[in-house]
Amino acid sequence: MDGKFRLFLDQAAGRAPADLRIDNARVLDVFGGGVRECPVCVGQGRILGFSALEARQVFDAGGRCLLPGLIDSHVHIESSMLCPARFAEIVLPFGTTTVIADPHEIANVQGVAGVRYMLEASAGLPLDVRVMLSSCVPALPVEDAGAVLEAADLAELMSDPRVAGLGEMMNVPGVLNADTGTLAKIRLAAAHGKRVDGHSPGLAGRDLDVYAAAGVSTDHECSTPEEALERIRRGMYVMLREGSAARDLLRLLPAVDSVNARRCLFCTDDRQPADILERGHINSHLRMAVAAGLDPVDAVRMATLNAAECYGLRGKGGIAPGWLADLVLVDDLQDFRVRAVWAGGRLAAENGRMLSELPQRDPGALRGSVRLAPLPENPFELRVPSGRARVIGIQPHSLVTTCDIREVRTSAEGVFDFALNPGLLKIAVLERHHATGKTGVGLLDGRYGLRGGAIATSVAHDSHNIVVAGDNDADMRLAVEETARLGGGVVMAARGRVLASLALPIGGLMSDQSAAGVADTLRELLRLARTHYHIWDQADAFMTLSFLALPVIPELKITARGLFDVSAFRFVDVDAGRR
Amino acid sequence: MDGKFRLFLDQAAGRAPADLRIDNARVLDVFGGGVRECPVCVGQGRILGFSALEARQVFDAGGRCLLPGLIDSHVHIESSMLCPARFAEIVLPFGTTTVIADPHEIANVQGVAGVRYMLEASAGLPLDVRVMLSSCVPALPVEDAGAVLEAADLAELMSDPRVAGLGEMMNVPGVLNADTGTLAKIRLAAAHGKRVDGHSPGLAGRDLDVYAAAGVSTDHECSTPEEALERIRRGMYVMLREGSAARDLLRLLPAVDSVNARRCLFCTDDRQPADILERGHINSHLRMAVAAGLDPVDAVRMATLNAAECYGLRGKGGIAPGWLADLVLVDDLQDFRVRAVWAGGRLAAENGRMLSELPQRDPGALRGSVRLAPLPENPFELRVPSGRARVIGIQPHSLVTTCDIREVRTSAEGVFDFALNPGLLKIAVLERHHATGKTGVGLLDGRYGLRGGAIATSVAHDSHNIVVAGDNDADMRLAVEETARLGGGVVMAARGRVLASLALPIGGLMSDQSAAGVADTLRELLRLARTHYHIWDQADAFMTLSFLALPVIPELKITARGLFDVSAFRFVDVDAGRR
Repeated sequence: MDGKFRLFLDQAAGRAPADLRIDNARVLDVFGGGVRECPVCVGQGRILGFSALEARQVFDAGGRCLLPGLIDSHVHIESSMLCPARFAEIVLPFGTTTVIADPHEIANVQGVAGVRYMLEASAGLPLDVRVMLSSCVPALPVEDAGAVLEAADLAELMSDPRVAGLGEMMNVPGVLNADTGTLAKIRLAAAHGKRVDGHSPGLAGRDLDVYAAAGVSTDHECSTPEEALERIRRGMYVMLREGSAARDLLRLLPAVDSVNARRCLFCTDDRQPADILERGHINSHLRMAVAAGLDPVDAVRMATLNAAECYGLRGKGGIAPGWLADLVLVDDLQDFRVRAVWAGGRLAAENGRMLSELPQRDPGALRGSVRLAPLPENPFELRVPSGRARVIGIQPHSLVTTCDIREVRTSAEGVFDFALNPGLLKIAVLERHHATGKTGVGLLDGRYGLRGGAIATSVAHDSHNIVVAGDNDADMRLAVEETARLGGGVVMAARGRVLASLALPIGGLMSDQSAAGVADTLRELLRLARTHYHIWDQADAFMTLSFLALPVIPELKITARGLFDVSAFRFVDVDAGRR
Repeated sequence: MDGKFRLFLDQAAGRAPADLRIDNARVLDVFGGGVRECPVCVGQGRILGFSALEARQVFDAGGRCLLPGLIDSHVHIESSMLCPARFAEIVLPFGTTTVIADPHEIANVQGVAGVRYMLEASAGLPLDVRVMLSSCVPALPVEDAGAVLEAADLAELMSDPRVAGLGEMMNVPGVLNADTGTLAKIRLAAAHGKRVDGHSPGLAGRDLDVYAAAGVSTDHECSTPEEALERIRRGMYVMLREGSAARDLLRLLPAVDSVNARRCLFCTDDRQPADILERGHINSHLRMAVAAGLDPVDAVRMATLNAAECYGLRGKGGIAPGWLADLVLVDDLQDFRVRAVWAGGRLAAENGRMLSELPQRDPGALRGSVRLAPLPENPFELRVPSGRARVIGIQPHSLVTTCDIREVRTSAEGVFDFALNPGLLKIAVLERHHATGKTGVGLLDGRYGLRGGAIATSVAHDSHNIVVAGDNDADMRLAVEETARLGGGVVMAARGRVLASLALPIGGLMSDQSAAGVADTLRELLRLARTHYHIWDQADAFMTLSFLALPVIPELKITARGLFDVSAFRFVDVDAGRR
């Protein structure tokens, strides 16, 4: 019998003073619905009860609403470009006290070590970070990721109490065709009684049956009410995602009713730091959903109890005796403006500000993850002897590209020449994990913009090699070399000098700077991209580049091994005269 | 990767024929609500999906409603007087495919061995029996039970995958006062991530906070809507109990609404075999609740998904791909008349009948549990020198007794004499676990009836010693000795001969006969009790006796150590002239 538990019961029974009493709060009851004015007492990080116990500290809630701490059911922390401590500092003030994080990006860079870093760097934070083990590293066998994760690699991690299951299973064909390695990962999670997250946009009918039958039981990739309802019916939890790019909440909301709401959750998936600072986090989902007509109790349950039930987070998601004192005080159930946030009974943030800076863990070997082979003399030389080239075409606000066939002018030797081809850019991906020197070079639709320079970044889904685009080879080289020198990041080069950069030294993905600092730098980079490079206003300068390297979304993508035709599932030559 | 899982996926994908396809069913969707007509395919005991797959067997549901298998959230199997196999045979045809069983009675007789018997005797049955480890054995320290269960005894059982937690925590003062042994049991369950069932009639306010804070998270003892709502608000699950004696469903139903229904469950607690045969099992809860106005989907969820969530029964409680094929076909969502029951994909019962007899496990040492010391010459001699006696008074349809002070006539030696005291009976409890010879003798209100004979039974809550009542010592002796000879049971003796009996040789509590046989015998015993003994029509002849031995319910009770004043919490003398 540990003394802490005995003290806790003594506090609940009034034999010892409570640590904290919150007075004048309207407490939202996620179990029975409704709001009730009563004191909430806390001891040992847990709720003691609803009586007016004597307490060492009293907080006056001023008639505001007290909710359970909010839960983001699916997030890639790396997408915030912040390390876990800085990420916690940006989301806690918005009331998010727990996240279900899939460290898919860092896993592609550093494998098990990357996942371990995320676990260790988030251990002991007031933000409770639960981890879903990345299921698809690399995304495709044709990719040069930094690591390969097989079931055997995941086995040692799956028993970690903070690991909540297997991350989004993007390898849908692997499940449908009962691929041995894929099934082994799913069975591993099942053997631990843990959940398997899904990722199955568009899947339906018998294929969806098979996917669910295999044990995949959530999905955050629905974009129509029908998709959502088909998944709910199959016992899956459906997440209403509202990220920086992918925004599905309002599209899916018509599917949610008072009967099925308990199978619905909220998530951000990917949200950039400036976006979080401006819109908020899961509290923004609450605001949007309620504004669109969802019952506030149902909405709060989706952000709390439902998520806790889905991921087996005992003692989370409600305000009740014995439950964890993760609490959020909001002005009302409309705007969900957050006034105070307690994590495990401790006041962590007030009026939008953290009360203290969180300790940051030294990333160790994750710093210096960029291992780029020395560049040859002409790394970006491109031969198109036939004079007809495959060019990556881009579309407004979309990650889907086209494969455009264009006439190009070349030197006598058949070498592509920028000067002869206005309206075309080069794009390249350079392997950077194992210094293999592999470099794929292609052509990019000039609609992207980018005049008089180059942009490089080590954030390049999902393998996170260095992707670079430019209108001259010299600036492309400079941008790539500066990215490597920074240990990863985003670099803009123009006319032989570095114009601006954001260092992402942790795995080449995350900064150890504050959210505000990263957001400011990113804003400045985006401003320069528009004013200096005239980047297309229908695209995000950096995110567009990042996804041009992902050979999962159609049609034509670039990898360190060259151009990849996603539909045909094969590499193709830039020269349209060859296969 | 096991071959069974691969075959299962091959069946789901249509690469191999399904084991079963149920056609023309209206499938109730507990996740999204509503009913949808679609095929349901089954393979390897699990749901494959909703497509019309080729199947080796096809079942025509004839437009009836298909529900997930029903779950009884709290039951003492021993109260059916049937061993687990016979119990399974009686409840499966009514659609109950899973029960959360607290083997509290057999644990009081045989301790860990009794719990193990229940686990082993139910292993492999089509009825899924999950066990809550009995938390309060004996019920009180003053009791002569067959065993004492401490946390250390429970520890070896708690990790059993079929053990779902700690059984009903009746020792409320132990929790409120943070008794070390009580907390150790609760912490044991918590350490295994398992649930602790409650039992806290009337508890409210801060005391209820403490009880919930300690980790008790269900209650089946509510009898008012207010009690139910106060528990739901504290994060507890509330069970609507409808047993043979305790009938709370209609009293509690006004508390249930569409918002809080997910925290509500159904249970029987104690239901006698004739009652099950006549009324049904959890399907009777559905029928009653829907007739009283509860939404059918909410009702079915309470009997399925909610219970599965409460007790962490993964893959149970819904009809969806990958979930267990525990299925119940009912005529409609009004009468819930059960037509067919599948357990783990196998047809177990049809039209109220089991399709096969279930194997019964040899109870081994549990047979012969009655170890009674040889009776002395006058075991029931009672001295009341003062001529004023404490008499156990009984009330209509109640387990609560009164302590009546009555004038009694005695022999010159002060010995109670039946002939001089018409309207008074003797009642005695004889220790029968360790042959200690302890015998408590008292007086019982003649209102009970019982003329010209005696009734004895080894079902005597909670210690299950032998309790006997009669209007003459000779028949009392005969009834007790015959009960012991049978290895336990119920015996009626009259004028020197055994009038009728029901043998309960398994722990003195359960029969190995069929439900119908036991029900018939019990009915005959009850008939004789009325016609031959003129037992009061406001009492149940045997249950009243059984509970007169339980020193937990006020006011005056009889134990093997003598009369017990429950409110004063002390033994008292039959002679009212003494303390």
